[in-house]
Amino acid sequence: MGVIRREETICAPATGSGGAIAVIRISGSQSLSICEKIFFPLDKLSKLSVNKGFTVMYGDIRNGDEIIDDVLVTIFRAPHSYTGENSIEISCHASPYIIKKILELLIFNGAISAKPGEFTQRAFMNGRIDLSQAEAVADIIASTTRSSHKVAINQMRGGFSAEIGRLRSELLNFASLIELELDFGEEDVEFADRKKLKAIVTSVKELADRLVDSFLLGNVVKNGIPVAIVGKPNSGKSTLLNALLMEEKAIVSEIPGTTRDTIEDTIIIDGIEYRFIDTAGLRETTDIIETLGIKKTHEKISQASVILLIDDVSDSAESINKRARAIREMIGESEKRLFILINKIDQSSPNRQLEIADKIRVEEKDTLLFISAKEKSGLEILRQKLSEVIVKERLSSDDIIITNIRHYEALLHVSESLERVITGLNNQIPEDLIAIDIRQAIHYLGEITGEITSDEILSNIFKNFCIGK
Amino acid sequence: MGVIRREETICAPATGSGGAIAVIRISGSQSLSICEKIFFPLDKLSKLSVNKGFTVMYGDIRNGDEIIDDVLVTIFRAPHSYTGENSIEISCHASPYIIKKILELLIFNGAISAKPGEFTQRAFMNGRIDLSQAEAVADIIASTTRSSHKVAINQMRGGFSAEIGRLRSELLNFASLIELELDFGEEDVEFADRKKLKAIVTSVKELADRLVDSFLLGNVVKNGIPVAIVGKPNSGKSTLLNALLMEEKAIVSEIPGTTRDTIEDTIIIDGIEYRFIDTAGLRETTDIIETLGIKKTHEKISQASVILLIDDVSDSAESINKRARAIREMIGESEKRLFILINKIDQSSPNRQLEIADKIRVEEKDTLLFISAKEKSGLEILRQKLSEVIVKERLSSDDIIITNIRHYEALLHVSESLERVITGLNNQIPEDLIAIDIRQAIHYLGEITGEITSDEILSNIFKNFCIGK
Repeated sequence: MGVIRREETICAPATGSGGAIAVIRISGSQSLSICEKIFFPLDKLSKLSVNKGFTVMYGDIRNGDEIIDDVLVTIFRAPHSYTGENSIEISCHASPYIIKKILELLIFNGAISAKPGEFTQRAFMNGRIDLSQAEAVADIIASTTRSSHKVAINQMRGGFSAEIGRLRSELLNFASLIELELDFGEEDVEFADRKKLKAIVTSVKELADRLVDSFLLGNVVKNGIPVAIVGKPNSGKSTLLNALLMEEKAIVSEIPGTTRDTIEDTIIIDGIEYRFIDTAGLRETTDIIETLGIKKTHEKISQASVILLIDDVSDSAESINKRARAIREMIGESEKRLFILINKIDQSSPNRQLEIADKIRVEEKDTLLFISAKEKSGLEILRQKLSEVIVKERLSSDDIIITNIRHYEALLHVSESLERVITGLNNQIPEDLIAIDIRQAIHYLGEITGEITSDEILSNIFKNFCIGK
Repeated sequence: MGVIRREETICAPATGSGGAIAVIRISGSQSLSICEKIFFPLDKLSKLSVNKGFTVMYGDIRNGDEIIDDVLVTIFRAPHSYTGENSIEISCHASPYIIKKILELLIFNGAISAKPGEFTQRAFMNGRIDLSQAEAVADIIASTTRSSHKVAINQMRGGFSAEIGRLRSELLNFASLIELELDFGEEDVEFADRKKLKAIVTSVKELADRLVDSFLLGNVVKNGIPVAIVGKPNSGKSTLLNALLMEEKAIVSEIPGTTRDTIEDTIIIDGIEYRFIDTAGLRETTDIIETLGIKKTHEKISQASVILLIDDVSDSAESINKRARAIREMIGESEKRLFILINKIDQSSPNRQLEIADKIRVEEKDTLLFISAKEKSGLEILRQKLSEVIVKERLSSDDIIITNIRHYEALLHVSESLERVITGLNNQIPEDLIAIDIRQAIHYLGEITGEITSDEILSNIFKNFCIGK
């Protein structure tokens, strides 16, 4: 953001490209007077600048005598608007020419182009929302699954902020008491009950640690679970990928108008997104060069949380075991999950499958699945197995989950500072040192909700927003 | 469209993909009661179903206890809405999950998914707009240039319909008089003044012909001018294309948020779009296979209205002349325009250019341009020359221009019918035959504005609309 501009009236398109209608947002003290210069209501007796908030007017946007479009104009009056300022939303036809022309007219009449996230930044600056709520707005917009939506809307509605605020005020209370002791200098008074302080600090630290721990799950919720499909050439990797994605496309496009324009390399199971990584290679029909054990497979596995190893039902159990062992070695001690999919069962007898199941290494038995990617059989069981990867109970609870790396890092600092406070209390180190660490914890908690902030933090947060929000 | 549904309440997303906010439209008698089931206003005392039209409410969309999003809901009450029915617009966060969920909730509570163009079709069925205005709505949304926007908005606001309506009522008047004569049978009365009738029919036919003629220009306005870049290998075809497109990109992205996502193969000069055809070949760095005279060049030229032949300043004037003559032969008698661009002038002396200009065939002198695609010199003159291809005076006038092939075809029929009327009047053929042709002209004029229509015509028109309009 750099310099924060609060006096200017900003404008930007708020809707995406395509569609039938587009919405242009204007916010700032001059919103109404600027729009009045280009908007001519159908009812000539009514006047935009004297109309109430939360009302809509119909009329033309004009450039001199030239009619640009007929539009709906919605009026919001400070402080009852998203930004807390006077605001206007112009709903026009979604023509690239019209959108551009209306923005030009607004700018010509005194507005300036909004920067990414500037509307939300103003909402924050004007005290409409705190910083973690502002960040949740971007997460809400990006949410594609039930779980990511749930976490984001929880945060946007202040559930997370309330918790942080409560912790912070408890700590603030103790910090003040300890600082009071310091003011009394050598008199050896003790306003802050050490036992109580330790209990509070411990409980705050526990919560901070729990939130820090939730980040792993939060990251999965927000960014999806990376899945790698590996296997020897012609085992059916691309057929499996296509089968899973085509099923997904059919599910997603049940409601007209919400069809994905392009097939993305993701599927959603039980509200969690699974992202197939490095699918470019799989898309090529000839994957002969890709054999197990090479660097590329190593890389894929290192990026993935779930690995699908595809084998051919005609392979010997020995070679299947050998490949599975090779992957296990690459996985090592990490929490990555491996599934072994025996493909092309349409070309084999049930006996053959029993034989493989019998000879497979005992540690792979639970993750062995027989499928036919070509005939789409066994895929439903695969989807079920994948969904079990995520401990569903944790997600369905109302626990607060951290999805934001900035919050994660701040909470790590909180935890570290409080760890020092606890050690300090145990070792009776001087009050002034303890006070510093408590202040630090308070500082980092305040950074999350934006009580403590800087231009740099704000700039980093809002630069990732889309324009118009 | 098939069956026309008027009793159902329809819903669809109206905005494009991406962006910060999305708008979902609902229209039909049940709009308010359906939305009331899922929308909970922040001000608990207010009620959606008793609120006035043209007002906005803030609150939550909920699925039982689960909050889906906080939204703005705009109320429109029949007949004061786009469709003429009760309507609602829900403005929510542009999350794919939220949009899908809100549509699901609307459908669960009794709405159905709108088909493409169904909102506009209802506006037509309910007499809010005529058919040619409905068609203009789609053109408005698709408009990317000043000229295409101007023609479409003219039509949407009824300029075209008014003209057609005037012609039609004049003809209707005479048709009635002639039919009155027929009712009187053998009595040989003449209610319709033949001289006046001929004058009217002639003037209507002239206008119909003028509109038919305007279709060529209208097509250019709506679809752009196809431009072919041809020339021998390594003459700089792809460098020229890139230079023109990069310039265009810089112009288009002046206003933040309106940047084109992908570079399209078009440039806009003076409000007219120029479409470069078959640019895939040019994009490849090795165009050695493409030599003049082959079938491909022939095909490109047949599709283009403007041909840019690129030559190298180091070529001999003879070879330039030879290539130009070959292109001229392919152009033949058509109205295609050829420009000869001598490229790479950065690598030559002014004397060399004078030498070429001197030796070029006399018929090419006016269209000879010296450029350096690499250094982007001469491109401004090229843009000027291109813009002269379109007779600008015609576009800047307020003449009505036909851009719709359905209108074009109907007007051709009108013209033919009236031609027969005029011939009939000259040859004193019987009234009943003349009446048939006048009725036919009236019929086709009525088809344009929708006084005469059929399910099939409607279906063809609205299926090309986007969903949500």
